[in-house]
Amino acid sequence: MADPSTSPPLTRESVAAARELIKPFVHRTPVISSTSLSALASEVDAGSGPEGKAKPKLRLWFKCENFQKVGAFKARGAFHAIERLKKEPGWLEGGGAQRGVVTHSSGNHAQALSLAARTNGIPAHIVMPSISAPPKIAATKGYGAHVVFSGSTSVEREAVTMKVIEETGARLVPPYDHPDIILGQGTLGLEFQEQVEALIAEEREKAGAGTGAEKKKKKGLDVIIAPCGGGGMLSGVALSCEGTGIRVFGSEPSFQGADDAKRGYESGTRIETVSSLTVADGLRTPLGRIPWSVIYERRLVSGFYSVSEAEIIRALRLAYERLKVVIEPSSAVPLAVALYNEDFRSMVEREAGEDGWDVGIVFSGGNVSLDALGKLFSENSEVAK
Amino acid sequence: MADPSTSPPLTRESVAAARELIKPFVHRTPVISSTSLSALASEVDAGSGPEGKAKPKLRLWFKCENFQKVGAFKARGAFHAIERLKKEPGWLEGGGAQRGVVTHSSGNHAQALSLAARTNGIPAHIVMPSISAPPKIAATKGYGAHVVFSGSTSVEREAVTMKVIEETGARLVPPYDHPDIILGQGTLGLEFQEQVEALIAEEREKAGAGTGAEKKKKKGLDVIIAPCGGGGMLSGVALSCEGTGIRVFGSEPSFQGADDAKRGYESGTRIETVSSLTVADGLRTPLGRIPWSVIYERRLVSGFYSVSEAEIIRALRLAYERLKVVIEPSSAVPLAVALYNEDFRSMVEREAGEDGWDVGIVFSGGNVSLDALGKLFSENSEVAK
Repeated sequence: MADPSTSPPLTRESVAAARELIKPFVHRTPVISSTSLSALASEVDAGSGPEGKAKPKLRLWFKCENFQKVGAFKARGAFHAIERLKKEPGWLEGGGAQRGVVTHSSGNHAQALSLAARTNGIPAHIVMPSISAPPKIAATKGYGAHVVFSGSTSVEREAVTMKVIEETGARLVPPYDHPDIILGQGTLGLEFQEQVEALIAEEREKAGAGTGAEKKKKKGLDVIIAPCGGGGMLSGVALSCEGTGIRVFGSEPSFQGADDAKRGYESGTRIETVSSLTVADGLRTPLGRIPWSVIYERRLVSGFYSVSEAEIIRALRLAYERLKVVIEPSSAVPLAVALYNEDFRSMVEREAGEDGWDVGIVFSGGNVSLDALGKLFSENSEVAK
Repeated sequence: MADPSTSPPLTRESVAAARELIKPFVHRTPVISSTSLSALASEVDAGSGPEGKAKPKLRLWFKCENFQKVGAFKARGAFHAIERLKKEPGWLEGGGAQRGVVTHSSGNHAQALSLAARTNGIPAHIVMPSISAPPKIAATKGYGAHVVFSGSTSVEREAVTMKVIEETGARLVPPYDHPDIILGQGTLGLEFQEQVEALIAEEREKAGAGTGAEKKKKKGLDVIIAPCGGGGMLSGVALSCEGTGIRVFGSEPSFQGADDAKRGYESGTRIETVSSLTVADGLRTPLGRIPWSVIYERRLVSGFYSVSEAEIIRALRLAYERLKVVIEPSSAVPLAVALYNEDFRSMVEREAGEDGWDVGIVFSGGNVSLDALGKLFSENSEVAK
């Protein structure tokens, strides 16, 4: 990873520059919408609780990073990290590309870094716990990475990572706590803004010349809700919205304290450890230091909402049934907020009023074990709507 | 349904006219591709059999009708049927719109007709076996249809349908055996051709100015493989390709004789009854009379290929894992042909040679019970690649 001191400043302009750098390597993923899901989100009975609930007017838009390379937004940050590294004075000249890159991850970041490295002919060393699921190991090797096993505690993983660095001279590319990663992930936010503007314009054209009242309405997203694990993507998306008037919210599972960013944001102190086995397995990570500086210290995120395991699974079912897309449970978390979180919904009702809001939901990835998914759906058929 | 004698002739031009008629009502569904699936299809080990297998070069393109309204291509035919009915001399003037439409179906056609009727403010009567799955009944009612129950044999369903027609004066809209339905379904074929041409052009532009050899290569689809149940969609797609040089193939499950169209095509006599419980539940229907005239008598379909239940499930898994799309088992049948049918694959190797073929796969729909899907994947994890 390039020395953070050489990274561009954390601004919307730097996200735009990152986008130009990674454009040849990543997909401009589609944005989809669904009349039936937006209608459901705008009904009182979207939730499951008692009477007297909010009835906000929501038009939902989904940024499908499940269709991104390696099946998750992580490809953006990884390709950006490599491009930036190639620009670091002396790295290429000093044989950096031969020494390669290294990270510890058993998830989407491992595959993303492996692909980005291979695309550039650079070796990638991936430190994974030896208890990792065999398909994940196979997938990472499938992208040409050199997999190194470690114990499963963070101390053990870091020790093995240090050893790899000593032996190979590979450069560490952390999964989220680095400006180049944050700027790379934020590129999805720029695309999302443009795509929804174009789709709304298209809808209006189809509907014919609008009335005066229709013309007055806003022409793009009012809000983006993104899942928050380490916070690299959430902080990147927040940067992509700075100065646009679009509010950005984080979403987390509440199970076993996985809502660490929410609790930290509300108490003013970052929470540094999390130990949750939430079904949204991409969000079991505590918020990183640099993401925190963007999200909390600069207040570029307007707040956090959390949802229960049952709400996540219910939202996951709806995504499969209504949108026909394969997403991983973490991706269902922001949708669950829009559908079921009364705090969020009454806020929208209060602030958006009759016009309602255009709400962007980030589908962060689609890497899910079908066996696990099969069990999840057959064991939770009773929570389905 | 409009009197067939008033229907436009079964030609590519009529498919284009149908497309203009339904344009305001249906989605132009996306076409996707996947480097990894195309690579897999081009490897010897895509199949599961012994040594000495074909190694064709396939570039796969997927037409995603699972993202169509009501989650299946059936919306096209249903909206076209209603538009044509509105144009039938005397139907509107004679109060036809008040008397409504009727069909017997428990699947995608029922929902499609219900939506098309409701969109036009026309009542829809849907005859369904009383043993139909409750979610299907609820979904059809959800589109505003009047559901009438019958016994589950075809004689019982037809008797109830006749009774509804006598009582209400509603017009019958059959699921596939009518020119207006065939022309409506065929519109997906025109879109598919245009979209792949555009995507290939885009790829070339990205890759920079091509060499002479690259420029000589074809610029669009070579082949389309579509699933075949009643044959309304397959015959419509075949019409959409007439005169273009694109070859169209039908695909079916071989389980319990569900490959009736294949057997009929090869023997020269249409098979009129099928009794199969194949997992591809949309393809348990025998080929209709008018589809047969297009497919066999006019030879607009070049041949049929069939696949086993295990091959369908394996292809289904790959669609979920690699493409991240929710499709129903019937939609996995043409993908299974491309990946696993040795007759098809050796034909491509022989005829396409080094250049390979651009192969269009029709994903016909995405309406699947997640509970059933969950069971399917957890019970068949051993057949996965």
